[in-house]
Amino acid sequence: MTTRSTAATARPSTKGRAVRTRTLLPGTDGIGTVRRSVLPGGLRVVTETLPTVRSATFGIWAAVGSRDETPVLNGATHYLEHLLFKGTRRRSALDISAAVDAVGGEMNAFTAKEYTCYYARVLDTDLPLAIDVVCDMLTGSLIRQEDIDAERGVVLEEIAMTEDDPGDQVHDLFSTAMLGDTPLGRPVLGTVETINALTRDQVARFYRKHYDPTRLVVAAAGNIDHAGLVRQVRRAFDRAGALRDPDAQPQPPRDGARTLRTAGRVEVLDRRTEQAHVVLGMPGLSRTDERRWALGVLNTALGGGMSSRLFQEVREKRGLAYSVYSYTSSFADCGLFGVYAGCQPARVPEVLKICRDELNQVAEHGLTDEELRRAIGQLSGSTVLGLEDTGALMNRIGKSELCWGDQLSVDDLLAKIAAVTPDEVRAVARDVLGQRPSLAAIGPLKQKQTARLHEAVS
Amino acid sequence: MTTRSTAATARPSTKGRAVRTRTLLPGTDGIGTVRRSVLPGGLRVVTETLPTVRSATFGIWAAVGSRDETPVLNGATHYLEHLLFKGTRRRSALDISAAVDAVGGEMNAFTAKEYTCYYARVLDTDLPLAIDVVCDMLTGSLIRQEDIDAERGVVLEEIAMTEDDPGDQVHDLFSTAMLGDTPLGRPVLGTVETINALTRDQVARFYRKHYDPTRLVVAAAGNIDHAGLVRQVRRAFDRAGALRDPDAQPQPPRDGARTLRTAGRVEVLDRRTEQAHVVLGMPGLSRTDERRWALGVLNTALGGGMSSRLFQEVREKRGLAYSVYSYTSSFADCGLFGVYAGCQPARVPEVLKICRDELNQVAEHGLTDEELRRAIGQLSGSTVLGLEDTGALMNRIGKSELCWGDQLSVDDLLAKIAAVTPDEVRAVARDVLGQRPSLAAIGPLKQKQTARLHEAVS
Repeated sequence: MTTRSTAATARPSTKGRAVRTRTLLPGTDGIGTVRRSVLPGGLRVVTETLPTVRSATFGIWAAVGSRDETPVLNGATHYLEHLLFKGTRRRSALDISAAVDAVGGEMNAFTAKEYTCYYARVLDTDLPLAIDVVCDMLTGSLIRQEDIDAERGVVLEEIAMTEDDPGDQVHDLFSTAMLGDTPLGRPVLGTVETINALTRDQVARFYRKHYDPTRLVVAAAGNIDHAGLVRQVRRAFDRAGALRDPDAQPQPPRDGARTLRTAGRVEVLDRRTEQAHVVLGMPGLSRTDERRWALGVLNTALGGGMSSRLFQEVREKRGLAYSVYSYTSSFADCGLFGVYAGCQPARVPEVLKICRDELNQVAEHGLTDEELRRAIGQLSGSTVLGLEDTGALMNRIGKSELCWGDQLSVDDLLAKIAAVTPDEVRAVARDVLGQRPSLAAIGPLKQKQTARLHEAVS
Repeated sequence: MTTRSTAATARPSTKGRAVRTRTLLPGTDGIGTVRRSVLPGGLRVVTETLPTVRSATFGIWAAVGSRDETPVLNGATHYLEHLLFKGTRRRSALDISAAVDAVGGEMNAFTAKEYTCYYARVLDTDLPLAIDVVCDMLTGSLIRQEDIDAERGVVLEEIAMTEDDPGDQVHDLFSTAMLGDTPLGRPVLGTVETINALTRDQVARFYRKHYDPTRLVVAAAGNIDHAGLVRQVRRAFDRAGALRDPDAQPQPPRDGARTLRTAGRVEVLDRRTEQAHVVLGMPGLSRTDERRWALGVLNTALGGGMSSRLFQEVREKRGLAYSVYSYTSSFADCGLFGVYAGCQPARVPEVLKICRDELNQVAEHGLTDEELRRAIGQLSGSTVLGLEDTGALMNRIGKSELCWGDQLSVDDLLAKIAAVTPDEVRAVARDVLGQRPSLAAIGPLKQKQTARLHEAVS
């Protein structure tokens, strides 16, 4: 276990040690230059410089998510994320929010299964303020008992809010179906029971363990100066005494490979909702699996847009759903593929049959040339369109550094998509969609209907 | 009633008539040039040219919303919006979606109470395609019986989905509470009953009446050429025979002023949700009311961010809610001011009391200098940050043209915000927040609790 001293005693210093900086991607027309520095102390800083915009997004990624929690700590990562907004040695909760509000910035955070990210998007002239506030939150959080107490109610309300949104909650239920009561299968928010049981001591220990600078990645994109930003980040971390060990090295990305074999599982929540919300799916691919490009193209053609097979068959031709789509989620060592639909409870068997038939059809025959061409075009165009704001750019480089330890240029990314062949799509369709599915459903589904759900995954 | 002939018979032509073009706002550093053309036939085209981006958003706004519906037609505007994606004389539904999907574009539409907008966001090189598809949808929709039949199910599913999202639905309920069973008070989606009753003939007539070019505004933003875009739009509308009357003039914006006096009304939906979702509010301001700048600043300070009074009092200090905020909505002749909170059903009276106390406090004393300064900074910064993508720019100029018949430069907008004085805020706080509120609530709220809701607005 890594620990960090927050006491103001003598400690090793990284002063005088040099920052190692490399340019990873040269800037081209409309695309920024990506640079990476490693500070003494093991803190990574990646930036993408785009001189044509007037804003910047500054973020800090922590290599901790709900999969790092033991059963009793379930929800601690997300609870901690809330607590980092509650005050530091230098700022009250109001000071933190007022600083960014006063310049019209957008500050927020998100917790996932494998990482947590805190960020602020501001006008470029306000970037120094954003850096100062976000670094302070990450390095100087107090996590006082009174904050734990007040914030427990907020987190419980967030859980209740999610339970009032069955179209959202069904994805958590699908995770449970596929991954069971495991670190990766449990909900990011935790449960009412675990949140009520978490103590100040447990959360503070979790913070000290997981927010070591070697486990953090600073990422920024927009109209910024890399060297100046690195200097300011270093000063902020130094001031907090967070860069202690001059020889500390950044922690490498999570890795591993595991074979997920869940098949034929059915999880149902009987709720008095108007629609039934269902996810049908199977094991997918890890985020380093080379077949992921082909699966991305396949997913796009199957359920990624209005012209996709599922949208056409379920919504356009039959009017059975408003929302129907497929998606992939990838982790370090495994992944999921899922199809979501929201429909009348009585139509669930019909909708599931259509979806399953389409999955089988593609598993057997792959895509048509026209579908493949269109899906490649769609993925390419939406990738480029999705990288126009500094928030998206910060996310891309921050997540890349944390999860792959590497940066891919947009051109290389587009080349990967364009290179996907019909054979690769056929192979991944057979490997992934050819598996026996599992199912999660929320709605007014009584015993009789539940039997039909089991048939749908038989 | 305006009608439009879609038969291919001889008709007056606008050929040879000149387009009138004006530059409304000169471009400055980082801000585009805004130009406006009026085509013979009465079609308006506004664009904002930003040569530094690689994308463009093309939209068409129709001056029709749910407030233009009679009771039996409730939901027709939104139903029609769906039907415009179902096929034209030149394209099937799949042709429409496949065209934009193939280039990775994002195509969608939204229907509000006073307008409807269809748009596509694409890479700049794909703009001609986007123009062609969206113009075709607007001018050449077939609205076939089979499309009506298939899409009815989709719209009903959309209604059901909204009913499964109480945090969304409570805003509709608040509209009902404030505006009653009136065109403006009824839901945009309509009801299960009205949607089931709508016929092909009614919807087609609604289309012919409201999609006349004099009632449309074409808006585009991004890396575009104004003159070229105007030519292409004119060709597309001409080809569809949509520009017939060379002397037709654009329809002026909606106007009017009405005094809304709703007070003390309570609307409750008893639902088995986890949270209670409440909106407490009162009549607000129309979109042309000069006090709207002061109300915008006031709304920001009261419930517009994490440092706002409501967030601090309800969430930060007491942990009673995850989501709590205030908002304004403005129409041509009136408006609403509302405070939303989602909390434990048993805590509703407490949360409402805190909110009402804050409203009263501000109505009586206005804001502190520090709050005013911060709110002005927040509104200014978020305004500028909110105008970085071409979709937001298209929305701004399209809505401005349709609703105000005018364009305001970002500098002038910021000047309006910066000029708000403490006295103006105090005056508008007294005028708006000083009114007796009404209330909408969704949750497991039994008779006894309902009595306490009436107390909250007494």
